[in-house]
Amino acid sequence: MNWKIYLSGEIHTDWREQIEQGVKQAGLAVRFYSPVTDHQASDDCGDNILGQEDKPFWKDHKASKINSIRTRSLIDKADVVVVRFGEKYRQWNAAFDAGYAVAMRKPLITLHDPDLTHALKEVDAAASAVAQTPEQVVGIIKYVIAGT
Amino acid sequence: MNWKIYLSGEIHTDWREQIEQGVKQAGLAVRFYSPVTDHQASDDCGDNILGQEDKPFWKDHKASKINSIRTRSLIDKADVVVVRFGEKYRQWNAAFDAGYAVAMRKPLITLHDPDLTHALKEVDAAASAVAQTPEQVVGIIKYVIAGT
Amino acid sequence: MNWKIYLSGEIHTDWREQIEQGVKQAGLAVRFYSPVTDHQASDDCGDNILGQEDKPFWKDHKASKINSIRTRSLIDKADVVVVRFGEKYRQWNAAFDAGYAVAMRKPLITLHDPDLTHALKEVDAAASAVAQTPEQVVGIIKYVIAGT
Amino acid sequence: MNWKIYLSGEIHTDWREQIEQGVKQAGLAVRFYSPVTDHQASDDCGDNILGQEDKPFWKDHKASKINSIRTRSLIDKADVVVVRFGEKYRQWNAAFDAGYAVAMRKPLITLHDPDLTHALKEVDAAASAVAQTPEQVVGIIKYVIAGT
Amino acid sequence: MNWKIYLSGEIHTDWREQIEQGVKQAGLAVRFYSPVTDHQASDDCGDNILGQEDKPFWKDHKASKINSIRTRSLIDKADVVVVRFGEKYRQWNAAFDAGYAVAMRKPLITLHDPDLTHALKEVDAAASAVAQTPEQVVGIIKYVIAGT
Amino acid sequence: MNWKIYLSGEIHTDWREQIEQGVKQAGLAVRFYSPVTDHQASDDCGDNILGQEDKPFWKDHKASKINSIRTRSLIDKADVVVVRFGEKYRQWNAAFDAGYAVAMRKPLITLHDPDLTHALKEVDAAASAVAQTPEQVVGIIKYVIAGT
Amino acid sequence: MNWKIYLSGEIHTDWREQIEQGVKQAGLAVRFYSPVTDHQASDDCGDNILGQEDKPFWKDHKASKINSIRTRSLIDKADVVVVRFGEKYRQWNAAFDAGYAVAMRKPLITLHDPDLTHALKEVDAAASAVAQTPEQVVGIIKYVIAGT
Amino acid sequence: MNWKIYLSGEIHTDWREQIEQGVKQAGLAVRFYSPVTDHQASDDCGDNILGQEDKPFWKDHKASKINSIRTRSLIDKADVVVVRFGEKYRQWNAAFDAGYAVAMRKPLITLHDPDLTHALKEVDAAASAVAQTPEQVVGIIKYVIAGT
Repeated sequence: MNWKIYLSGEIHTDWREQIEQGVKQAGLAVRFYSPVTDHQASDDCGDNILGQEDKPFWKDHKASKINSIRTRSLIDKADVVVVRFGEKYRQWNAAFDAGYAVAMRKPLITLHDPDLTHALKEVDAAASAVAQTPEQVVGIIKYVIAGT
Repeated sequence: MNWKIYLSGEIHTDWREQIEQGVKQAGLAVRFYSPVTDHQASDDCGDNILGQEDKPFWKDHKASKINSIRTRSLIDKADVVVVRFGEKYRQWNAAFDAGYAVAMRKPLITLHDPDLTHALKEVDAAASAVAQTPEQVVGIIKYVIAGT
Repeated sequence: MNWKIYLSGEIHTDWREQIEQGVKQAGLAVRFYSPVTDHQASDDCGDNILGQEDKPFWKDHKASKINSIRTRSLIDKADVVVVRFGEKYRQWNAAFDAGYAVAMRKPLITLHDPDLTHALKEVDAAASAVAQTPEQVVGIIKYVIAGT
Repeated sequence: MNWKIYLSGEIHTDWREQIEQGVKQAGLAVRFYSPVTDHQASDDCGDNILGQEDKPFWKDHKASKINSIRTRSLIDKADVVVVRFGEKYRQWNAAFDAGYAVAMRKPLITLHDPDLTHALKEVDAAASAVAQTPEQVVGIIKYVIAGT
Repeated sequence: MNWKIYLSGEIHTDWREQIEQGVKQAGLAVRFYSPVTDHQASDDCGDNILGQEDKPFWKDHKASKINSIRTRSLIDKADVVVVRFGEKYRQWNAAFDAGYAVAMRKPLITLHDPDLTHALKEVDAAASAVAQTPEQVVGIIKYVIAGT
Repeated sequence: MNWKIYLSGEIHTDWREQIEQGVKQAGLAVRFYSPVTDHQASDDCGDNILGQEDKPFWKDHKASKINSIRTRSLIDKADVVVVRFGEKYRQWNAAFDAGYAVAMRKPLITLHDPDLTHALKEVDAAASAVAQTPEQVVGIIKYVIAGT
Repeated sequence: MNWKIYLSGEIHTDWREQIEQGVKQAGLAVRFYSPVTDHQASDDCGDNILGQEDKPFWKDHKASKINSIRTRSLIDKADVVVVRFGEKYRQWNAAFDAGYAVAMRKPLITLHDPDLTHALKEVDAAASAVAQTPEQVVGIIKYVIAGT
Repeated sequence: MNWKIYLSGEIHTDWREQIEQGVKQAGLAVRFYSPVTDHQASDDCGDNILGQEDKPFWKDHKASKINSIRTRSLIDKADVVVVRFGEKYRQWNAAFDAGYAVAMRKPLITLHDPDLTHALKEVDAAASAVAQTPEQVVGIIKYVIAGT
């Protein structure tokens, strides 16, 4: 089986690269998916493609709907969803993805620092594993796929 | 039809009461559901019922899982889910509920101040309506049920 | 069993009343649902409740999303969906409802004049019955529920 | 991932070719599906294959049911459904496809001129994006798949 | 719980009455559903309500589709489906109902003479119980509901 | 797309070969599935593999359950299900497969002589096409896949 | 909301009565369901109702299938499933019910002594709460329903 | 079709190898999946990857949740699930897998000695076949795939 893993959440550090590289080094057949991680492109895609909006609300609305075509399609196809929460920003989209993934019966792995534990308790309670480092996520993926 | 509406999210203001009262005054047959809104009871229910944990992580874990019995059962039965985001706290559970509700095909109404618009754009994009005040939510419920 | 029937589509003639009255005279336990049939209220509900939009597109968008809370909730709960197509207007929402209902496994009854047969052939092909008059719809409902 | 996109609706202009060509030039791995777009073949397939009918209703019925084997199978397999509405004809089948696709959880992109906005408001409200030109649809597909 | 049981199949003997009476005497809360069991009414409902067809195929087609509104709605709502096969006629609709019920996750009870065992082996293999007499079906219903 | 078509029903004539050959000659990418069509092997598989039963009922039961592993798996994976009814035998398994397939949302094509029309009216009413010859089935498959 | 709770598993102690009584004393609107807990009746229901079998395997088979009509129907309708594991017997049916319930999205509460923790780790990992005493289960039910 | 078969349950004998080898010798295209069968690795994966727990309960909990990512993903993808019950240990996870698989509509084959028949009667009643030896399972797989 070729495992498909969706990496949701925080886009300002290189945690995705760390996981992808760690898994690659382990020689596992995993395809990684993620949202568009170019912040500007993601915010502006609605205006860029479909024309400019006057109100920020509708600019955001158009962009987010286009982004949802990608994110929902990929989560729907994923075998596992990893969601990373960072210290900065509110990241409600990450928590939204987690809720969506759980309702779609996707095993969820959360990744965050221990000082976010209380704030994320409902999300973690729905997760199959709670990791603190990308290495731990790699460890879980390796174990789940290769058994070691 | 007796409409069932789940009120998720922020628990520090009286927005739930305002909505319930507004709908009651309109004479509509609506049953409202919500999570346990007593903060302390919600945090401690795991330890209180099943025994104390040493580590905060497992205390939170036990409590959140028990709370999820209530929240998921009620969201699963709801016709409409309203999620309120406030200024304070991270409220990832509210965004999680929103994602869960959308995946379960529940119409979503979000309720928040306009200055959270950009941070909540992915959640709002999945919503059937974005309100700024409890009165607007009452207005939507009245219109949806009674047509006026 | 208390049958629930959703009456979708054309809102400018009294076909809903004719069906409801015919079924009532037959003494059958049927609850009828429909969209908001007040054209103006339906068009303006977004602006009325949530504030005015400058662009007609977003005015329509907000209103239609609010209306969808009602229409989808009621179609989801219906046992049978009747969709009426008239001569005037494009009525794409009626055909949309028909497609939505069929995908949700709802038995579909269409109601339209015979000169719309060719234009509605894909919708009729998905229907359990194609009626030309409200009396025929009443006849179907009576037969389906009471067997005569 | 090899994206699968279903192109539903209007069959009298070359919008499908424009989209397919634009996506091909972008070097993206997309497989496009569509209904049978030969109008005559589509109308006559029932009579041609299964024998002639006297009544136009049953001729249409047989043909539409055969066509539905193709359209539903392909929509069920699609990742994204694009529906084009033109100025001419009633195109209830296009709106039916849109409703069916939405109920099957398929992201919907509508494509139509701005003067159809009001008539299509319920369909657009269920769409993830509303485009006015095939170029815009290409832009959305490129962004969703390649992130740029 | 108020159990709902659908009685499908053979319509020429009084097996339905026997089951309903036996269950009634046991004082159990069961609501029984069945197709229209008036053979003539069932065959002619399409022509009677929607107008006469020239070809027997389309007469049957129209009637069967109307009947399916009733049968599928009631099977979908049933907790248990009982299908009776008699000696006469081909009764493909009974076997069709059985296959439909099983796919919809309904517990199936078949009722037929032992000399039909080999012919019905695939249907019986999908059943939760295979009875030979209405008394046995009553026995099963009593045991399942009351535990004795 | 590589179409998958399941051929259910009658096993005493070469209708499967005719369809497979006709489709092959048309150069279409179709994979055909069918039940085990060796009558004896199918009847005896339970006893042969798991040991002999004394009672014919349990012999049939064991065999049919093993056969159902194949038939349900393949119907679940099929894009289209063709069910052939012949003159001989009761073929309740064919009608059962048809009901199962319809409930699993599979487009159904029935294949039978016109003198079975009345007996098969409920099954035909659930079908997307009713054919009388293997050539017609080939015609439908060709049209559905290739559009001509 | 009237909560429905299914009590599965061990049938040799009065844990069900303790839970039902505790919940009753708390004045909560809960309907409790359970399998037939009369061991002999449960083992013999197949033979008693449908006639005696020679082989113990088929006697058990017939009985278990009849019992499954009750257990699956009630689990399917339950809001919460409680599964009790005792010290004696293998109780594979209890673990089977737990797996079935989880796959059907039912919140699961397990009830067992701490010395079964390691043996039940996979079942407990799928549970929303792990209790050691009926009082704790009552505590959870009270908290989930009444919030205190 | 490439069949996917999940082998659940007992991990102390070489029954998996026997089945895989028997199927390989028959030249069939089957991919076999199983849980991590290294007992120690399976028990310790939580502590090994995510850090040590003080309480055995949470150690087991973390490990079992990680293991469930693998087991549920693979069962969800399997066409057939084989569950082996041995003489030793309680093997509640095997019965849990069986219940989960049945609820997910997977054909189930059980494999166990005849003296476990009574204890496993509910699990066997939900199975499509009950085998006593790995050779019999190979026989079923061969028959189901190759028809001989």
